[in-house]
Amino acid sequence: MNNHPFDKALELQPAGSGQPGTWLGASSPAYWNMVGPFGGITAATAVQAVMRHPDRLGEPIALTVNYAAALGPGPFTVQATPVRTNRSTQHWTLLLSQPDGQGADAVVMSATAVTAARRQTWSANDTPMPATPAPSEVAPRVFAVGLEWLRRYEMRLVEGMVPEVWDGGGNDSLTRLWVRDEPPRPLDFPALAAMADVFYPRVWLRRATHVPAGTVSITTYFHADSGQLAQTGEGFLLGQARAQAFRNGFFDQTAHIWSEAGALLATSHQMVYYKE
Amino acid sequence: MNNHPFDKALELQPAGSGQPGTWLGASSPAYWNMVGPFGGITAATAVQAVMRHPDRLGEPIALTVNYAAALGPGPFTVQATPVRTNRSTQHWTLLLSQPDGQGADAVVMSATAVTAARRQTWSANDTPMPATPAPSEVAPRVFAVGLEWLRRYEMRLVEGMVPEVWDGGGNDSLTRLWVRDEPPRPLDFPALAAMADVFYPRVWLRRATHVPAGTVSITTYFHADSGQLAQTGEGFLLGQARAQAFRNGFFDQTAHIWSEAGALLATSHQMVYYKE
Repeated sequence: MNNHPFDKALELQPAGSGQPGTWLGASSPAYWNMVGPFGGITAATAVQAVMRHPDRLGEPIALTVNYAAALGPGPFTVQATPVRTNRSTQHWTLLLSQPDGQGADAVVMSATAVTAARRQTWSANDTPMPATPAPSEVAPRVFAVGLEWLRRYEMRLVEGMVPEVWDGGGNDSLTRLWVRDEPPRPLDFPALAAMADVFYPRVWLRRATHVPAGTVSITTYFHADSGQLAQTGEGFLLGQARAQAFRNGFFDQTAHIWSEAGALLATSHQMVYYKE
Repeated sequence: MNNHPFDKALELQPAGSGQPGTWLGASSPAYWNMVGPFGGITAATAVQAVMRHPDRLGEPIALTVNYAAALGPGPFTVQATPVRTNRSTQHWTLLLSQPDGQGADAVVMSATAVTAARRQTWSANDTPMPATPAPSEVAPRVFAVGLEWLRRYEMRLVEGMVPEVWDGGGNDSLTRLWVRDEPPRPLDFPALAAMADVFYPRVWLRRATHVPAGTVSITTYFHADSGQLAQTGEGFLLGQARAQAFRNGFFDQTAHIWSEAGALLATSHQMVYYKE
């Protein structure tokens, strides 16, 4: 499993004994998008920095990642700081930085996370998985574009594909797809954080128009604990994404991720820049 | 207008010329909730600290506030730092702290924000306001509980009131209500951030059971710019909130805020702790 491209992409070396929570990593060519790595892998790196911190309490329940600039090739530093530890919750701030070429470090990503020791309580899934064909009944999607990160996921699109004709004729922004790592890999919190960001920009679908777009901020809430993630294993997840409003350069996108068995594992929201 | 309780609650004094972006404030008795101020006023304080920073670029588009501990009575320090400034976006981190009683400061809230210089683009509201009676057709809600912050808002509940009988019989978590400041006050970004958090915990409605609950993290996306806020003025906003999943101590809550004219001003999401 440690030879999986996802695990290689998340490799972090401790920066040194005097800097607890500070890690050195490198941006992953295997997850390269257009001008930097796929944003999901950066979100996963934030989760990984928290997961590996020796003082961590509990498991992630909330994550917000702000993409301040495109991550460049080469090394980066990520710092995870537990700013407040309570009896059953812990609050984290994170910064990821790279050399700015002028001898200083520049912030590329800022994030916050909350981890918690969960207890069993009354529970209810109020967002049932929509009825869709099973993964085996949907053809794998081969993407025409040669983006490296797309090769790291097996996606089976149920509805809302990238438009094949950019004719300005769209009217809806809903995509549903089955997704898992390629090759398959047991689900964990970093992988779930990454998969919450696999949806292409809703503005392309809604307008059937190919405009520049990129995530500015994403928040993911983890409803699953590690036991539920282990039950999901290497199985497909059903992902759904939809925009709610497009206004003067920014739109939001709300997403849901279910296990194939129908458990809502995560809900996610993002604010996305778009041009024109 | 500066005598409005909301403006008084948001009063911030610069901490000193050597500490740009650091402000001194005090928690507001006028917005007191059960064990600290209403969370919305703390979120508004974060927005205010950004709005007043001399280096601010543009207007808020995204805000995440993590409630690390209950804010106590008395003074606090809030620090807003622009960690990255691009051509048209700016990324902020914020910390709010109070003396911990042992000679040090303890983090009570961490936050991130993104501000942006918006440009006019193709826009679309894909989440129309639900059909509801006008504010004048709905009776103002007088709350039986004596929480001070509830007196600072005029709320007219369209559906999904706090259960009158705690009989464990709930089956839905949807609330819709008209809301505005009491007395009325022109809408701005801090006020909108606060109003995104006026909904009582969904778990009470869903279960008709009164369990301890409190927001852990809230993210609000601002679709409106200051021009649209000015158009809304002192008018009522329609707020809607609904839970998506309850699982082992935490549930999420998704919210929408429209102007009375039907513009989607903000979308918001929060993760909430609950007991039992």
